[in-house]
Amino acid sequence: MKRRNLLSKIALGTASTYTITACQSPNPPEPNPEPTPSQPLIRWRMATSWPKSLDIIFGAAEILCRRVEQMTEGRFTITPYPANEIISPLQILDGVIAGTVECGHTNLLFSFDRNPALGLISGLPFGMNLPQHNAWFFHGGGLEAMQKIYQGFGVNTFPAGNTGLQMGGWFNRKINSVDDLKGLKMRIPGLGGKILERLGCEVQVLPGDEIFPALEQGKIDAAEWIGPYDDEKLGLNRIAPYYYYPGWWEPSSVLIALVNRSQWDRLPKSYQEIFRSAALEAYFLTISRYDAANGEALERMILSGTELLPYSQEILEDAYSVALELYQKYASDSEDFARIYQQWKQFQSSIVNGYTTNQLTYSNFISEREKIN
Amino acid sequence: MKRRNLLSKIALGTASTYTITACQSPNPPEPNPEPTPSQPLIRWRMATSWPKSLDIIFGAAEILCRRVEQMTEGRFTITPYPANEIISPLQILDGVIAGTVECGHTNLLFSFDRNPALGLISGLPFGMNLPQHNAWFFHGGGLEAMQKIYQGFGVNTFPAGNTGLQMGGWFNRKINSVDDLKGLKMRIPGLGGKILERLGCEVQVLPGDEIFPALEQGKIDAAEWIGPYDDEKLGLNRIAPYYYYPGWWEPSSVLIALVNRSQWDRLPKSYQEIFRSAALEAYFLTISRYDAANGEALERMILSGTELLPYSQEILEDAYSVALELYQKYASDSEDFARIYQQWKQFQSSIVNGYTTNQLTYSNFISEREKIN
Repeated sequence: MKRRNLLSKIALGTASTYTITACQSPNPPEPNPEPTPSQPLIRWRMATSWPKSLDIIFGAAEILCRRVEQMTEGRFTITPYPANEIISPLQILDGVIAGTVECGHTNLLFSFDRNPALGLISGLPFGMNLPQHNAWFFHGGGLEAMQKIYQGFGVNTFPAGNTGLQMGGWFNRKINSVDDLKGLKMRIPGLGGKILERLGCEVQVLPGDEIFPALEQGKIDAAEWIGPYDDEKLGLNRIAPYYYYPGWWEPSSVLIALVNRSQWDRLPKSYQEIFRSAALEAYFLTISRYDAANGEALERMILSGTELLPYSQEILEDAYSVALELYQKYASDSEDFARIYQQWKQFQSSIVNGYTTNQLTYSNFISEREKIN
Repeated sequence: MKRRNLLSKIALGTASTYTITACQSPNPPEPNPEPTPSQPLIRWRMATSWPKSLDIIFGAAEILCRRVEQMTEGRFTITPYPANEIISPLQILDGVIAGTVECGHTNLLFSFDRNPALGLISGLPFGMNLPQHNAWFFHGGGLEAMQKIYQGFGVNTFPAGNTGLQMGGWFNRKINSVDDLKGLKMRIPGLGGKILERLGCEVQVLPGDEIFPALEQGKIDAAEWIGPYDDEKLGLNRIAPYYYYPGWWEPSSVLIALVNRSQWDRLPKSYQEIFRSAALEAYFLTISRYDAANGEALERMILSGTELLPYSQEILEDAYSVALELYQKYASDSEDFARIYQQWKQFQSSIVNGYTTNQLTYSNFISEREKIN
């Protein structure tokens, strides 16, 4: 009986009779007891870290701005500016704190040197894949951890895009073993760079526009940028023949909108909620735009001669070991990193063993079939 | 020179100098030349296909309603109703068309018998995995195809949730070969059911609350519902020992908000855009909520004795062949299905071979490491 009671509570109730309740709701004009909320005209500027030509990542800022405008019928408008038009790309946070602009759009990782936990919150090398990372970020504490860190900087922050898993970079020769990495000159910033340094690479950090000429002139042997769609825009497939996968150093890369706190506090509550929602639209749609565009771009590259190669198991395993050592070091240096890493690992272990098996088995099966056909 | 020009156009510009333009934008109070848009008080009811106890899927409707309310500061409120309180779960579309309620929240598949192309738009058995499906749905024509079909029914439709990849169902005995499926009594609706029927199963369709007793009384030998989190609520892990993966018959299942067209047309433009945005929040957050909750639920089940088993290669391959035959049949019977399937396959082939390799290789590697540790 107990069981039947339980089940009756959770009944889906798929009875096929079409029930109409007596109570109709024809939307009668209602009295208007409360004052209409304030809808001030507000014009903001959004400085971004992106050139317009990188149209998906700059497009994330555009989605946010366009949706805010549409949801307020043009009362609240935000104009996105490409990198360097108002603020240089790595200085967006400073510009928002100073109030040079009301808001900005940038990458979580660009504040990595202020707090290494941001690297973890954006997506760790060899960390959870993007769907898992999203589950943790939105429902396992990541979002709140990020907001708290930026509150400490004096700004409000909102997830507003994600590049998804990046690629494993371009090489002018084949890389079969860890030995082949020794002395290799590679353009790669961030945690991935620190791991490759420990494996013997000579790591450099160059801005996007300097990568192609550096490869052409032999100043570097290898470089990573983002993924097929953006890499093609830099022309990297025309100068390096080998394109490696997977991009183990960036399974997820969170893009954020930053808002000056005093500007935020002046917004009507409805505009605040609209901004938040528009940012989340940008977050999600940027992921699916990259998934659509990267596939097509990689197809084009392969057709025009790019050789797509997997990292060897040896390189992946050595890089993985070095990564785990690095995280131990960060955890001992940073309280934030230690606390969030602990919670992140618990979450990871709760979802990787089980449900992922379902998703991976499915994806592996359809991927094999598709190749056969 | 040409190449340098190209590159200067796409420069990321990572110069580290902190540039502040002369033009400051301190948000001066602006004149208010346009009339404040209308913000009528509107109260809607949303009939859903879900009991409250299935709190993630009913929660998708709740997210939509809560966000609309927040973004309008309570001027536009929508109350979600569980299944059967106003309309029975499979009749939401009829209720919205008739104007019994202004809007509803249901599953795309519940209109499958009106147009088989909706099965494809929701997520085909052995079709693209969820990230790929989202890329197609939002950037490859799926959304527009769905909207057009529902416009034909006289309602507006918005993506407002997705269960993600479902599981492969519960069995009272091990299923090793296609022979083991012959005569097996299984609860499974939709296209998956049609495929299993062709493989020899005796397929039944039962509402959620009848699954447990039917298994207990031996009226069926097997059943599928949704995934670990929701299946646990039905108690299926307490009555069937074997839980199979992957859930090849439903890699994606699109949940939708339906709106009566004349009610929609009466909304101010801003409320329309706010509704659209709130629905997209619900779409995305439901995916990540399921990813978080399913992992933990499956861990609990395994700890309490559920045996997690993969479908054999033989069953997967036979089911896959039967599925492709079925799609040919639908394509010859339905113009919509034929046209959309053609475009869907083109999109699939453009993204499966290349970029997926990156994502799968990454996910396979980290999944193996996680299991070792």
